[in-house]
Amino acid sequence: MQIAIEPLTADAFAPFGEVLAPRTEPSRMINAGRCERHHALATVERGEGEAILSIFRSQGVDLPYSFDLLERHPLGSQAFMPLSDRPWLSIVAPDADGRPGTPRAFLVPAHTGVNLWAGTWHGVLTPLGGAAEFFVVDREGNGENLEEISIPPVTVCA
Amino acid sequence: MQIAIEPLTADAFAPFGEVLAPRTEPSRMINAGRCERHHALATVERGEGEAILSIFRSQGVDLPYSFDLLERHPLGSQAFMPLSDRPWLSIVAPDADGRPGTPRAFLVPAHTGVNLWAGTWHGVLTPLGGAAEFFVVDREGNGENLEEISIPPVTVCA
Repeated sequence: MQIAIEPLTADAFAPFGEVLAPRTEPSRMINAGRCERHHALATVERGEGEAILSIFRSQGVDLPYSFDLLERHPLGSQAFMPLSDRPWLSIVAPDADGRPGTPRAFLVPAHTGVNLWAGTWHGVLTPLGGAAEFFVVDREGNGENLEEISIPPVTVCA
Repeated sequence: MQIAIEPLTADAFAPFGEVLAPRTEPSRMINAGRCERHHALATVERGEGEAILSIFRSQGVDLPYSFDLLERHPLGSQAFMPLSDRPWLSIVAPDADGRPGTPRAFLVPAHTGVNLWAGTWHGVLTPLGGAAEFFVVDREGNGENLEEISIPPVTVCA
């Protein structure tokens, strides 16, 4: 199967998670008017666990890019914020009776993150244009929070 | 009072919080060996509240930089990860009987964040070299989580 890259919008991404980017208007000004606060773009889903902060350093991918593995974290959300100046792909899929449906590939601009809802099927990190670091906020605690599944190969077109 | 800028090290910063940067060695490899996970550099302190994700967009500061206000959040930690390519200052102070002691100014490299412990006195955001966005993980919930205090002016030297 081949899929095309889609632009990232909050509406299009809503079934999978939240877009982490400044809003058109800040929630409020802080620091005596020196700083915009774009407040609570997302709330960590953690169940009985805790929210932890990690850094992932991933190899980059080139287009066309093929994959045959998806994963999900049923017990917590997972946020990815790139620390590079380059765009990246967020590959996600709807759930279809416990298995991933047709994947979608969103082009996420530089300096923009996403917070995946607990249980959202997604691919591995796929930064474009080279290796990149991501600041990650996810959940740690008891219980099995990783489910991986092989799928027929999918290619993201250039 | 004048204070000098100090280099950021995990040891020097330990009384105030954690440095958010990749470790020398990753905690483990994920994504079939394509990605380093530097796991749980920090755990969000949230008490009875929740961990939220926000973006702050702050004006920059120039050196010498003077300030006369510090704040702290007694009920939760607060993590700041810069999204720009430039260093920034983390201004913090020890507690001395409920008031801030002598402030310290740490030079935080680009792509490096800090997670302030709950209750750490700190200044407003002070990015160097121009305005900058920061990805912020802190706590939302019931209770008064902001304490601000005026201090005699302190100047951070160039």
